[in-house]
Amino acid sequence: MKTYLECIPCFVQQTLDAASMVSDDPQVHWRVVRRALELIADFPVDLPPPAMAARINRLIREETGNADPYRKVKKEANALALGLLPRMRERVRTSADPFETALRIAIAGNIMDWGARRHLTPDDARVEPTIEQTLRGPIRGLPVDEFHSRLAKAGKVLYLADNAGEIAFDGLFIPFIPCDDVTLAVKGEPVINDATRDDAEQVGLPDGVRLVSTGSGTPGTVLEDCTEEFRDLFAAADVVIAKGQANYETLSRVAAPVHFLLKAKCPVIARDIGCTVGDTLLLDSELVPSEAIQT
Amino acid sequence: MKTYLECIPCFVQQTLDAASMVSDDPQVHWRVVRRALELIADFPVDLPPPAMAARINRLIREETGNADPYRKVKKEANALALGLLPRMRERVRTSADPFETALRIAIAGNIMDWGARRHLTPDDARVEPTIEQTLRGPIRGLPVDEFHSRLAKAGKVLYLADNAGEIAFDGLFIPFIPCDDVTLAVKGEPVINDATRDDAEQVGLPDGVRLVSTGSGTPGTVLEDCTEEFRDLFAAADVVIAKGQANYETLSRVAAPVHFLLKAKCPVIARDIGCTVGDTLLLDSELVPSEAIQT
Repeated sequence: MKTYLECIPCFVQQTLDAASMVSDDPQVHWRVVRRALELIADFPVDLPPPAMAARINRLIREETGNADPYRKVKKEANALALGLLPRMRERVRTSADPFETALRIAIAGNIMDWGARRHLTPDDARVEPTIEQTLRGPIRGLPVDEFHSRLAKAGKVLYLADNAGEIAFDGLFIPFIPCDDVTLAVKGEPVINDATRDDAEQVGLPDGVRLVSTGSGTPGTVLEDCTEEFRDLFAAADVVIAKGQANYETLSRVAAPVHFLLKAKCPVIARDIGCTVGDTLLLDSELVPSEAIQT
Repeated sequence: MKTYLECIPCFVQQTLDAASMVSDDPQVHWRVVRRALELIADFPVDLPPPAMAARINRLIREETGNADPYRKVKKEANALALGLLPRMRERVRTSADPFETALRIAIAGNIMDWGARRHLTPDDARVEPTIEQTLRGPIRGLPVDEFHSRLAKAGKVLYLADNAGEIAFDGLFIPFIPCDDVTLAVKGEPVINDATRDDAEQVGLPDGVRLVSTGSGTPGTVLEDCTEEFRDLFAAADVVIAKGQANYETLSRVAAPVHFLLKAKCPVIARDIGCTVGDTLLLDSELVPSEAIQT
């Protein structure tokens, strides 16, 4: 997905949020914001929005020496998700269709996104209602049965994690994927509240899940930024599961068997997909969005 | 008031709003926004935020030739206010204290502000509840009796209008000001949805109200941008009534008998004043804000 005009105020707001997380000094805030405005003014519009988020992240690190502004937010999100996990496990255990219930919980976890929803707090009262709505409401896009059948036929599945907190729900879902070879990929460096190896360790992952790093510090998955090892895994996967908005933004034009699992959280992405903010989505990247959400 | 960091995303959003009002061409939008980002990056933080709004306005005019992006919005706001006016007149007519009721209606009109509240539509359902709340709720700041008594002692009153639409309610209030020499000032050029001579004519003003232009196209009142004639009027006024946020932002540090009438609509201004968003304010500029809202 290219960058839309409406992404610009969000870039500025993300810069302010990150700057105020790492410093109390208004001089530092202004310096960071002024440099960010110049970066944004020069940003190539055909790049996806996460490429800008990565630049802002680098700028914050250069100006403040802090490479992980969202560390505290991520820790709190992990704790929130771990607190919800026993009840979620019970929902799956007592479900008539554990695969679909676990899948829905994994998508619901995508609400824990501090990039798209800045006013969300880790103990936010909106998290649980969103999970309930995602457990009950429609899933737009590929039918769940068809997704299950593709996974059952796959020799290798690559699962691209999105955010801290959310990754605990990914860990709940992965054992229900009907494929023995599932690799979970996290970011190589902290960026916004994206999950890294640290977050995977904080929430703990089920036995047998192989964890890899993309090697990249860009939200989503920009293949050119990733390690060769990761690119090989991506190329070898029969099914790629890509969580969250940033993965949609960076992979929606990539020719690969990518399946996006996400909550549509911002009007720009909803318009690009042709859906409504709040929708629960399972999209086949090989269909154009307008076809993908017909079903 | 100086410019705060939190004003920056608003500047960007205002640019986007204005650009999309004057052109459907994404190329134009991007060019305007990129240039605006550069202007914002270079903006001196000790200037008040309306100085930036004026620069954005000039930029839009340069890039698109359109000097009045909000023309349609203002026309609709004027029509909205005119539609409400008969009921407002009736409220004043049947009030035990017509001066205070008309004053409250004039402050309530300040909700019709497309600079601070971009999602407001001219037929917005929030306008009427806000008027009701402003008619009933407390006024923070100077006691209304004291304000009335200062006006009664004044030889000359200068009344600085803020927005289109709102100016119809200013016209309702002005005849209740106990002073025979009241001059109403509007902007010299269109900027955001600020009232100009055109808007005063669209809503019609009571007989005997003298209308002048500040000569300036900056929201609020930046005296250096105004004509000498206007500056003379400002200096000669015994009481200046200044409507709206932009007048607070531009005049809060000016030594003059200014009385701000406004609704606090953004968290930055509320913090600067020491009040809460939504508050109805009558502030004496000669008191520091923390003193002014004690009463």
